[in-house]
Amino acid sequence: MTNSASINGAATGEFELIDAIVKTLGAASTGSHVLLGPGDDAAMIALPAGDALVTSVDTLLPDVHFPEGAAAPLIGQRALRVSVSDLAAMGAQPLACVISLVLPKSTHPQWVRDLSRGFADAALEFGCPVTGGNLTAGPLSICVTVQGSVPAEFALTRDGAQPGDDVWVSGPLGGAAVALIEGELDRVPGLVADAAMSQTQQQYFLPTPQLTLGVGLRLVATSAIDISDGLAADLGHIVHRSEVAIALDGAAIPRFAGATLEQALYGGDDYHLCFTAPKSQRDVVNQLGDGLRRIGYVSAGAPKLLLDGAVLPQRGFDHFASEKN
Amino acid sequence: MTNSASINGAATGEFELIDAIVKTLGAASTGSHVLLGPGDDAAMIALPAGDALVTSVDTLLPDVHFPEGAAAPLIGQRALRVSVSDLAAMGAQPLACVISLVLPKSTHPQWVRDLSRGFADAALEFGCPVTGGNLTAGPLSICVTVQGSVPAEFALTRDGAQPGDDVWVSGPLGGAAVALIEGELDRVPGLVADAAMSQTQQQYFLPTPQLTLGVGLRLVATSAIDISDGLAADLGHIVHRSEVAIALDGAAIPRFAGATLEQALYGGDDYHLCFTAPKSQRDVVNQLGDGLRRIGYVSAGAPKLLLDGAVLPQRGFDHFASEKN
Repeated sequence: MTNSASINGAATGEFELIDAIVKTLGAASTGSHVLLGPGDDAAMIALPAGDALVTSVDTLLPDVHFPEGAAAPLIGQRALRVSVSDLAAMGAQPLACVISLVLPKSTHPQWVRDLSRGFADAALEFGCPVTGGNLTAGPLSICVTVQGSVPAEFALTRDGAQPGDDVWVSGPLGGAAVALIEGELDRVPGLVADAAMSQTQQQYFLPTPQLTLGVGLRLVATSAIDISDGLAADLGHIVHRSEVAIALDGAAIPRFAGATLEQALYGGDDYHLCFTAPKSQRDVVNQLGDGLRRIGYVSAGAPKLLLDGAVLPQRGFDHFASEKN
Repeated sequence: MTNSASINGAATGEFELIDAIVKTLGAASTGSHVLLGPGDDAAMIALPAGDALVTSVDTLLPDVHFPEGAAAPLIGQRALRVSVSDLAAMGAQPLACVISLVLPKSTHPQWVRDLSRGFADAALEFGCPVTGGNLTAGPLSICVTVQGSVPAEFALTRDGAQPGDDVWVSGPLGGAAVALIEGELDRVPGLVADAAMSQTQQQYFLPTPQLTLGVGLRLVATSAIDISDGLAADLGHIVHRSEVAIALDGAAIPRFAGATLEQALYGGDDYHLCFTAPKSQRDVVNQLGDGLRRIGYVSAGAPKLLLDGAVLPQRGFDHFASEKN
């Protein structure tokens, strides 16, 4: 309730924390289309005329979606980047996001400022200002709702893959899985420059939403998804939503340095785009980026995913799996 | 990953739970402006031409924002209603919402279906379809992001109160506080018809977002806020954002049956609108509803809130208060 927040110890109030977050965000909560930023009952933005609104929400929990001891700016960066990636998968351009934080009462204000700096850095890099949010005390969680826009008829969805289409992926897979398995994530220092991180650590904490590619694919791709749960699981969504079969060529799947085919298929957290496009568009697709690789093709028939001719088990990360019968 | 979810025990997987939620939502996830509902990387909706997008996010935690043992449909109803209330406070009309659920692994699928039925009932009642969401395992929380639209120039904000304006409230306050203090919330049966609840229980679990009033106030009010943290705390936001003084007449503040002035001032969870409007608009305001009451006036000077001539302490709910020095 005060406008003169003084945060200089471990103990502070809700409104002082909000004030510190808003101050840290600074220019990252503004934009020419932002009509009302943090501080009112709701945020307000203008949409490009004629475009549809695209919205995605993700909640990140410690030791599920990020290591609890990771540097706060990296947690903030990752939270925003993985959400913006969903916009890229739709062929949408970012407009804004709102963030709902649940923080333990013992959270140090500096940690909150560092987290907010991560939000701010990613918001500025990807043009996705943080226009509002919510703060409450409880078990740590970060809920990011991103909003973007796309002409509705050009949106990339999961249900348009056609028999005869090629299957593409936008870059090497398995990098984040290597970082996870090798325990590299626990060795990230508290405050890091990007250069101090290994390539696989960077892949995990600072994935690059494929926004430019997504826009380029609007007139080209028949379906698209971003790879968050692993290539096999996410292609499974296209298979079932498009009601097609997809055959992958294992040798053609690009792998991050040091990653196995298993990690490339099931690792997750890659945030490259996987998409389908007609064969007639191969030259166009190849002009959209250097790292694009053709990894298989779509065919008619019962929905299934094949690797080198054999049906691929549908294993992906299931948050509720350990309670399964 | 399967389209034929079978939920008949306490144990199930993430994708089966999502399927059960989407099935329970049914028509409550659709609408003529909903271009893409649950099941893709993001939801997609069309906005009324020329309108601005209004967005608000809230996270609800057990035993903070609802009693952990309350009936799941009531928790779902309350979650959506308190979020839609933020749209009413902006003079906006609901468009859609996305819901991110964190559920303990032990959550019974029937509880999730009941919660979703609460979401669906409120979504249909207030025209706010649930177009997407997220599900992860962890400590129970419900994060609702609501989206609405309003012509930007007519949006109701907190910063426009002018000296000489009247201060209004849309209905009796303190009902939810009575329910809280009298422990009534713990006595709500597991599955209830509205009629089985006391009036104060209904006020707590089923507050009515003042959407029609919000739209009616677009051309009339100079500032508005919904009363979630208590009249004193929420009017404090108008005082500070508008940089005005506000004087309240204690006897004029409408109280819920059985509520004290203290409960009406500090109770919270009322979700009535509090707003300011020029004196010249009194007749217009009175035509907007029966329960509207004039409770004070705005004056120039240092931002402060007065009750019957004395400065009112700024007490509201502070989620981090118990850690304060």
